[in-house]
Amino acid sequence: MEHLSVNAAQAIVVRSVQLPGIESVKLEQCLGRVLAEDIRANRDQPPYDVSAMDGFALRSADVANAPATLLIIEDIRAGDMPTKTVQAGQCARIMTGAPVPPGADTVIRVEDTQAVSDTQVQINVTVKPNNDIRPRGEGMRNGEVVLQAGMEITPGVVGMLAMVKRIDVQVYRQPRVAILSTGDELEGLHDPFNANKIPDANSYALMAQVQVLGIQPVLLGIARDEPEELRQYLQQGLKYDVLLVSGGTSVGVHDYVRPTLEALGVQMKFWRVEMKPGHPMAFGVAADSFVFGLPGNPVSSMVCFEEFVLPALRRMMGHTRIYRRTITARLTHEVKHKHSRTEFVRVMLAREEGSYAVTSTGAQGSGILASMSKAEGLMVVPAESKGMAAGSSVTVQLLDGMAYQHEAGGEY
Amino acid sequence: MEHLSVNAAQAIVVRSVQLPGIESVKLEQCLGRVLAEDIRANRDQPPYDVSAMDGFALRSADVANAPATLLIIEDIRAGDMPTKTVQAGQCARIMTGAPVPPGADTVIRVEDTQAVSDTQVQINVTVKPNNDIRPRGEGMRNGEVVLQAGMEITPGVVGMLAMVKRIDVQVYRQPRVAILSTGDELEGLHDPFNANKIPDANSYALMAQVQVLGIQPVLLGIARDEPEELRQYLQQGLKYDVLLVSGGTSVGVHDYVRPTLEALGVQMKFWRVEMKPGHPMAFGVAADSFVFGLPGNPVSSMVCFEEFVLPALRRMMGHTRIYRRTITARLTHEVKHKHSRTEFVRVMLAREEGSYAVTSTGAQGSGILASMSKAEGLMVVPAESKGMAAGSSVTVQLLDGMAYQHEAGGEY
Repeated sequence: MEHLSVNAAQAIVVRSVQLPGIESVKLEQCLGRVLAEDIRANRDQPPYDVSAMDGFALRSADVANAPATLLIIEDIRAGDMPTKTVQAGQCARIMTGAPVPPGADTVIRVEDTQAVSDTQVQINVTVKPNNDIRPRGEGMRNGEVVLQAGMEITPGVVGMLAMVKRIDVQVYRQPRVAILSTGDELEGLHDPFNANKIPDANSYALMAQVQVLGIQPVLLGIARDEPEELRQYLQQGLKYDVLLVSGGTSVGVHDYVRPTLEALGVQMKFWRVEMKPGHPMAFGVAADSFVFGLPGNPVSSMVCFEEFVLPALRRMMGHTRIYRRTITARLTHEVKHKHSRTEFVRVMLAREEGSYAVTSTGAQGSGILASMSKAEGLMVVPAESKGMAAGSSVTVQLLDGMAYQHEAGGEY
Repeated sequence: MEHLSVNAAQAIVVRSVQLPGIESVKLEQCLGRVLAEDIRANRDQPPYDVSAMDGFALRSADVANAPATLLIIEDIRAGDMPTKTVQAGQCARIMTGAPVPPGADTVIRVEDTQAVSDTQVQINVTVKPNNDIRPRGEGMRNGEVVLQAGMEITPGVVGMLAMVKRIDVQVYRQPRVAILSTGDELEGLHDPFNANKIPDANSYALMAQVQVLGIQPVLLGIARDEPEELRQYLQQGLKYDVLLVSGGTSVGVHDYVRPTLEALGVQMKFWRVEMKPGHPMAFGVAADSFVFGLPGNPVSSMVCFEEFVLPALRRMMGHTRIYRRTITARLTHEVKHKHSRTEFVRVMLAREEGSYAVTSTGAQGSGILASMSKAEGLMVVPAESKGMAAGSSVTVQLLDGMAYQHEAGGEY
């Protein structure tokens, strides 16, 4: 249990957690969830051969020696069904998305024709069969699986669910998450101002980290350093799928929260990880709940959330992509590393040719919450590193806000 | 207006839209919004010099010739205030986060000491002044600006807002968005099944694309190809900050929706963009509203949303990062390009050494919605491209779901 690496601790967490089950949600509320069922097409789409252009549906043989003048027998709009069969020397005026009439084997766009009269058109070019026709079932075929269980529901998936008219959809249930702060030194958001206290930033930073995943957590409040009060709070927290307990620096998660959790039936899997910030970082398994004991200061607590709680919650939601996206980028300055723990340095990123330049947010003290509010990524300094020189190629985990950039993508 | 490039059209859109104003929201609801005020610290944090370790607060001069045995005069926990002054030969037991008592100038961690009795401790090593002390104001200084107007509210920002006890915060208001589909061929989600109709996927795909930004749009429904009905729907839509109108393939956005919008006072800025999919793509400005005329088929509509509506909505929300993040990656196969429009190819990405391999989702017909549900990115084929060879370095705009990856970041 001593000298547990970040990777090894992550593996324990991710192996331990279980998916809390399946539920049905409305199409309007399913974005970001994970499909728990295969979805099949319930019709051919398009339901018939349709025109891909505004133009004329005709028999290709009739225009083999174009130009040729044809008789317009019908106008077909999207939503109309053709009523006539196109015979030799005939054509139908057709709009994009409208069904190709029987008899016609091709479509020619209006730009390649010339009006002769209301009922006659001159076709100026020859055209092969099946030109500008979208064949029946091109988009989907009745009965085929169009979406697989396990897919994350992105807007494209929502569109496909609407295409098969799924009003409700089976998804993995979201874990219910409770957040508890501990410590006599803490001042609640709505408590009166006391210059000697420390505001409870942890509850709200963790709340927001959970909200990023689309989960609305419950804030249990602040447990004071009083054994029975703490026990009652923890007991309440264990009614949720996931309990996040942070702080309690005066007595320490290891001295006080941990034995109370154990007395409540929680099996602790680990309580220290070789990382900085975040050395005291605990994880336990209860009958119906998973408990994370996070460090007391907000920076450490947030970094531990990123490394352990985030992948756990995403796994519980049914995701297979559970870790923050990483990029390889260029470090702009030296970073010293004189211990044997993995370090997560809060960094800012600047675009440069083909990649990014990485710069520390400044002082990395774990009490400096501004370093998290400015951070665009967490640079990983491996445990065995002897320090990194300016110009080194480094790995950065991208934090929230980095899904978008200032400049338009590419030149076009 | 002819031959308008994607970049030029984006510039028109982004220059035209305006921020709809400022509102106050609760801390619990501010994630993802943009700060509309500077935030100042309202206290020093920490409020006093605090210990960074569990250990002993003492006078460094007393241990210049360590080992030395000192008298323990007090126990100080986080949340306690010291009641005594440390004199020569004395120390105080101190917990992480607790105030350093007067008289003491340094802290030594418990691991470097040895208990002698309940009231005496042997200090084994010498220690410099200010060791393991977090100075008052290290985290923030009373009155300093800790968060700037214009910052996106990430979890780190939420933590900082909680640290300064902001129950409410001023943010840019979200635009109100209405979505309208048009066309006789469309079948609503709750309409009875009709094999000859096409389900209205657009309304829901666009809904989800708007939801990604944290905005809940209003779905106006489907306007049939009937002038007065369309006019009423559009008039209703113009009551919102942004109106998205898609479809109407039977009559065309250019033949029918556009003149109706103009009759309603909308000044059209453009109605065609040199792109594929999405050639018919309109943008107009009304007195209190911005209107996007999107193509009728869902793939084109979604791509146009990505390129034009997304940056517009993010700009209106106050963001400066308004475009999808792009990566440079390796194309695994040839892509032909025989026209002079910018093409957006739906692609999947596979991790490879230092970057990604890019592969088309398959057939790129704009009626093939599956290509959007599988897509992880949009590969940009510039208008002037003569085609791209396998192995080419290409630009890919990352779509939703790509903020996370399968593997843990780095090795640690």
